[in-house]
Amino acid sequence: MSSTVSRRRFVGGLAAVGYLGARPELELVAQAPAPRAPRSRPRLSLEEYDAAAKLSYNENPYGPSEAVMKAMTGAFRFDNRYNYPDADIVQAIAAHHGVKAENVILGAGSSEILQVAGRAFLQSGRKVVGVEPTFADVYEYASGVHAESIILPLHDDYRQDIAALVRATRANHRDVGFVYLCNPNNPTGLVVTKQEVRQLLDGIPDDVPVLIDEAYHHYVEHPDYATSTPYVLEGRQVIVTRTFSKVYGLAGMRLGYGLAPKPLVDRMRPHCTGSINALVKWAGAAALRDTAAAERVRTSTLQLRKKTTAELEALGYKALPSDANFFMVHIRRDVAPIIEAFRARGVLVGRPFAPMLEHLRVSVGTAEEMDRFLKGFKEILAS
Amino acid sequence: MSSTVSRRRFVGGLAAVGYLGARPELELVAQAPAPRAPRSRPRLSLEEYDAAAKLSYNENPYGPSEAVMKAMTGAFRFDNRYNYPDADIVQAIAAHHGVKAENVILGAGSSEILQVAGRAFLQSGRKVVGVEPTFADVYEYASGVHAESIILPLHDDYRQDIAALVRATRANHRDVGFVYLCNPNNPTGLVVTKQEVRQLLDGIPDDVPVLIDEAYHHYVEHPDYATSTPYVLEGRQVIVTRTFSKVYGLAGMRLGYGLAPKPLVDRMRPHCTGSINALVKWAGAAALRDTAAAERVRTSTLQLRKKTTAELEALGYKALPSDANFFMVHIRRDVAPIIEAFRARGVLVGRPFAPMLEHLRVSVGTAEEMDRFLKGFKEILAS
Repeated sequence: MSSTVSRRRFVGGLAAVGYLGARPELELVAQAPAPRAPRSRPRLSLEEYDAAAKLSYNENPYGPSEAVMKAMTGAFRFDNRYNYPDADIVQAIAAHHGVKAENVILGAGSSEILQVAGRAFLQSGRKVVGVEPTFADVYEYASGVHAESIILPLHDDYRQDIAALVRATRANHRDVGFVYLCNPNNPTGLVVTKQEVRQLLDGIPDDVPVLIDEAYHHYVEHPDYATSTPYVLEGRQVIVTRTFSKVYGLAGMRLGYGLAPKPLVDRMRPHCTGSINALVKWAGAAALRDTAAAERVRTSTLQLRKKTTAELEALGYKALPSDANFFMVHIRRDVAPIIEAFRARGVLVGRPFAPMLEHLRVSVGTAEEMDRFLKGFKEILAS
Repeated sequence: MSSTVSRRRFVGGLAAVGYLGARPELELVAQAPAPRAPRSRPRLSLEEYDAAAKLSYNENPYGPSEAVMKAMTGAFRFDNRYNYPDADIVQAIAAHHGVKAENVILGAGSSEILQVAGRAFLQSGRKVVGVEPTFADVYEYASGVHAESIILPLHDDYRQDIAALVRATRANHRDVGFVYLCNPNNPTGLVVTKQEVRQLLDGIPDDVPVLIDEAYHHYVEHPDYATSTPYVLEGRQVIVTRTFSKVYGLAGMRLGYGLAPKPLVDRMRPHCTGSINALVKWAGAAALRDTAAAERVRTSTLQLRKKTTAELEALGYKALPSDANFFMVHIRRDVAPIIEAFRARGVLVGRPFAPMLEHLRVSVGTAEEMDRFLKGFKEILAS
């Protein structure tokens, strides 16, 4: 994400990070999180960017719907204003989820809510608990506030190890600021079932907030998945984050939100910039109304994902069972040179996600982009 | 500002604030900052908003130029993307000021940079030093990180008391996180001269950062004013903030920046969301190129300000000598009911700015809006 590239350069290495390996009962080992490849390669030119198959950032390749575009162009008349009519975006979100406006906290993308949670809950040496790999920005935001992270490995089948999250949280109760759960998880695409979410919430002490990142919620088909928003109404210590960046196609416009019981919202609110542009407020309200457009995006994304992974399986490469707009395919060799080989063909795929360094993450683009990906895959992996 | 309304509700009263009265050598008195009227009145409907003369938020009534609009509509193709070509906005800003990219920190409006400065420099009980009234959000951001403020009164002629700022900073050296100087000052419109800026920088200890907020820079005509950006190149502990919200007409799109020596930028960077939308990055780069448009805005704003204040003087009401796109007129009575009387006529003027409660702040709108203001002024103040 654009928002974190510069952060990576500056916060890297600030925090000592505890990594709980296969034996979580062992004491924490201070260890840096799996490093990312430095972003040393030059940015693409506009022409290269336009020509590329963009399958690296889990974007929605279709962009916002016509109704949303109309809302944005209509809102241009507020582009020079403060405190203009804002399509009642907070109320629209609250109504969409059946919560009160006081349960909604807006962010410039849901990643702002993750940052805000870091600032609000990781004071005085408190730690975030979560798995690896996941949407690692949450650990980087923790580093940004000089907080440590307790990072647990996935199960052998790449699902999140809920029992280990519970154990680590209980074992470090007084030091835990919040637990982070990405559902479905990025980069694996695997869901945490509703039973597992309950197991987590019931297993940890009542006063530990759990941030459940549902950025990819709209793509889930798994029968045992459920959104965690009802826990907000129950007053459980849960913050559910959602974004307009995915199924609504507004990543570049920056809007997301958190839903939480009022006391948690009140703790987070002072750490928010609240600096959200006029266009995306109107866009968000229009997007929530345009359910047909979201359904179209969902349908064609899932179709293309299934078609692509079926072809990969036919080629002998297993994909993880994703419930998101991306998937991971096991290529049984180091991904780094493969990513570069794709790039040389104008196909941008996901970066390496340590420690899953033989899995390639591929976002679901347009049909044409998936064809280019498959063509490249055959060329590169056959050679 | 939209971004701070919700903050106000939540951070109010968190901080004890020291107020240095007429005798700054006295010890600090814990005291709340002058409270603002609660925003209890209902938000305007879209129709009321459109019909109103909007003279309350120091906005640019003309909005962005045609070239900037074109840049924004062209950037819609990135609205669903992360990490897209961004018009090299950081480099464009650096080149505009003759600094390096490493000296530039982008914010979603310059108010984000003020927040970031609070997070970066007001750790462990450090305080911000500044005057009152000024752009008070800086004190509210301080409250948001549980920091205190040392707030000094203006001179009798409403200029900022530089000698007092120096004394307060020296007297509290170890406790001062940064000094805040809004130049020209909001809400008075009065400049701090270049000699006074130097007096401040030379008078305080070398290691105390000074944040100089030049949001209204483009409207200044005062011969003794100068931008403080050259101090950045000198490596002085100065952060100069600028915004695209004023002369460039992009308040609702959220873009601003800070310029500072690299060590200060490095301290601030981890506290930034960096979450800026695609459209305004392209808009900002186009706005910096469209110098003719900025000059048109400046010229007509200054003409209308002078015409309006001349008419007020002819009516017997003195205006402070403003160098901004707003002015304060001394109405010699409590402003609160006058503001309401304007509102009843569909003319929105500035809120009360304690302790200057007999001064009305009026933003310079269009010619038609200024006519409506003057008509209302005659009706209300004559009655």
